[in-house]
Amino acid sequence: MTDFSLDPTLAGDCLILGDLPLCRVLLLNDSRYPWLVLVPRRAGMAEIIDLDPQDRTRLLDEIVLASEVLKTAAEPDKLNIGALGNKVRQLHVHVMARFASDPAWPGPVWGHSPAVPYPAHVAGIVIDRLRALLTPHGLKAIAP
Amino acid sequence: MTDFSLDPTLAGDCLILGDLPLCRVLLLNDSRYPWLVLVPRRAGMAEIIDLDPQDRTRLLDEIVLASEVLKTAAEPDKLNIGALGNKVRQLHVHVMARFASDPAWPGPVWGHSPAVPYPAHVAGIVIDRLRALLTPHGLKAIAP
Repeated sequence: MTDFSLDPTLAGDCLILGDLPLCRVLLLNDSRYPWLVLVPRRAGMAEIIDLDPQDRTRLLDEIVLASEVLKTAAEPDKLNIGALGNKVRQLHVHVMARFASDPAWPGPVWGHSPAVPYPAHVAGIVIDRLRALLTPHGLKAIAP
Repeated sequence: MTDFSLDPTLAGDCLILGDLPLCRVLLLNDSRYPWLVLVPRRAGMAEIIDLDPQDRTRLLDEIVLASEVLKTAAEPDKLNIGALGNKVRQLHVHVMARFASDPAWPGPVWGHSPAVPYPAHVAGIVIDRLRALLTPHGLKAIAP
């Protein structure tokens, strides 16, 4: 079994929050949507059904945690959860907070329009807030 | 607790395959994509996190089953799974088979273009095939 390494497109599009027991947790660097991406740290996975049953349960637990954290942090009108992977093959799950006032509403965010990155000082504040909510539930920092 | 009833938009857009232990299983009536929709038979649910933990696990099991059935029936290039609900509030999960040759590839299917319904004789064949794959795993017919 080869080691896990984060897909370079995901790495380029996202900021890293840390690791939960199964997933690396990313913040999509698009300031218009509070948007987490969960990437199971298992090499060679493309589909949820590629995971073994124990990891599927862990993934569900971490999707629920990410949902609760976004609900607390952003008070969205709706959560959107998706595992697509048509462009980036590495298994990853989007958990995002949606608002009736957001640019893509009520359509899906994927493919709507180019990301608007966080200004650097805002990114730090958002990352700190999300890490503070995730850390009591097992988020660990990863070496830079 | 009020009784479950299927959202009228979902009822209008889909054909009914039957009931699994948690979900009503629908076939999206768009002949361009093999596309199942799972609707937990619980009243008043909008988010996966609205379900109790036992039902969340059941939902995961049924997403896995729907994925395996589509993989067997359609041999897709990729599975796409999504819980959005920005337009139809009733909790429902899309499980669809995607092909590099399909009209929306590699973008998401939602919002891409109007559905192309199955011709009636084809719908019957597809429904029979999917029911035959789901029935050994607990699908029950529902009264029309």
